[in-house]
Amino acid sequence: MINQLAIIGLGLMGGSLAKAAKKYNACKSIIAFDLNQHTLKQSLADAVIDHAATSPAKAAQHADLIMLATPVNTSKNIFSEIANHCSAHAVISDMGSCKLSVISAAKDQLKHAYSQFVPGHPMAGSEKSGLTAANAELYFDKTIILTPTDKTKQESLEKLRQFWQKIHAKVITMPAEKHDQLVAFTSHLPHILAIAFMNSMSNEFSHDDLLAGIGGGFKDFTRIASADPTMWADICLANKAAITDKIAEFETTLLAFRQALANDDNKKLLEIIAQAKQRREDLLS
Amino acid sequence: MINQLAIIGLGLMGGSLAKAAKKYNACKSIIAFDLNQHTLKQSLADAVIDHAATSPAKAAQHADLIMLATPVNTSKNIFSEIANHCSAHAVISDMGSCKLSVISAAKDQLKHAYSQFVPGHPMAGSEKSGLTAANAELYFDKTIILTPTDKTKQESLEKLRQFWQKIHAKVITMPAEKHDQLVAFTSHLPHILAIAFMNSMSNEFSHDDLLAGIGGGFKDFTRIASADPTMWADICLANKAAITDKIAEFETTLLAFRQALANDDNKKLLEIIAQAKQRREDLLS
Repeated sequence: MINQLAIIGLGLMGGSLAKAAKKYNACKSIIAFDLNQHTLKQSLADAVIDHAATSPAKAAQHADLIMLATPVNTSKNIFSEIANHCSAHAVISDMGSCKLSVISAAKDQLKHAYSQFVPGHPMAGSEKSGLTAANAELYFDKTIILTPTDKTKQESLEKLRQFWQKIHAKVITMPAEKHDQLVAFTSHLPHILAIAFMNSMSNEFSHDDLLAGIGGGFKDFTRIASADPTMWADICLANKAAITDKIAEFETTLLAFRQALANDDNKKLLEIIAQAKQRREDLLS
Repeated sequence: MINQLAIIGLGLMGGSLAKAAKKYNACKSIIAFDLNQHTLKQSLADAVIDHAATSPAKAAQHADLIMLATPVNTSKNIFSEIANHCSAHAVISDMGSCKLSVISAAKDQLKHAYSQFVPGHPMAGSEKSGLTAANAELYFDKTIILTPTDKTKQESLEKLRQFWQKIHAKVITMPAEKHDQLVAFTSHLPHILAIAFMNSMSNEFSHDDLLAGIGGGFKDFTRIASADPTMWADICLANKAAITDKIAEFETTLLAFRQALANDDNKKLLEIIAQAKQRREDLLS
């Protein structure tokens, strides 16, 4: 059991973690820091947290589990601020969408506390953001991918695993490199394709034309293009190498489609479309 | 009021049309033809239709409205078969996803009856197909795009408009060229991107890895990759010119994204992502 949980950042992810930890008794008390004073006060007033800290370092100093729930590009500064203020038994973790860049920042900044760091990524989210969208069930039955480093202490990993299980999440582990390639394909590439698709919309169409031409398929396909721009620019830059790979792989398959179409090759088109359908069904049915 | 409605093809679209026409009293009787004898018998047994015809020509001969509800690439043959068997007052229409290729086939094959042809495309569908998926509400409150040719008789257009309105669909008209570009963007391109995306899946990931990495975004984004391969190969070939344009426009915006990423250009990435979000919200909120 965690005595004190410190959460840095009370957005959708951090706020939901606080609510879940309370609901499922996964810790005795919660201290949090957020740059937004209003958010911090509100969460205290609503008893989402028990204590408000005036800095990441102050949030961290008495905590058993320190969870970063801020944009990936802020990790470096936060690691630097808390490095000399974590107790030796504390587990340090994060919820960032890509792991290699966060691990690199942790290695540079956490110094002796680096072995207490267990990188993590909850496969949960929403196109909504902020504390108001937070809910205690965001992680319920969701997968948490932990990507321990070669220095991560087994004890820290187990403590974190138990914490997540307590709030009914499922924990798996994999190497950070594989994680970053995996989410580049399953999450980052679809976002980028939906974004590029929306931007390819020609101004030859009126608003009414477009509304007439849009069905359920369009709505579902583009839903992820409504995600938060700041967060997504951050994620794309942090996972640039893997994303660049995945875009290149996609361009190869799009080219194959375009060539079959140019050649009026009905047999090849059928093969391509049937393969996509089969792969989706193998995965999701 | 239509006396006899002839439906060629009792799949999702044709079957739903029959059910809707019955439910909303949009015609006095329904005759249908389908290549599949079992489907035809079943629909007769279920009173989805009133008469089964042994050929498209026999279905057409006493009908006031002849509706083609078959794959686009079958239109030419069907027009040829019915051309000399339609009464002079009959309206001929279709439900194909692209219009220029169907219009070209109609012009070549329908001869004197070409002025009775009103090309149409209901903006309704499902990834399910076949008569078993058909339902009387498929077109309810949905948009039907009609693309009359320069030869289409006003009287035929009005008769068809009233028929669709009777089953609670909303009718709009636009030029066939514009329709084909519009659906190439709103429907065909998303299908192609979802297909190419599924096919870009690398075999570096195990089934379990992939399941761990998949969230609601992935599921929604790829749903249309499960569409019927035969139908989609057909649609893509029939709307090749417009689709080729739209793929090229998409490749331009994907390239812009890739370049901003390669240059670590956070400002440009933010602009690109924010533009996509804004466009979607302007359209769908």
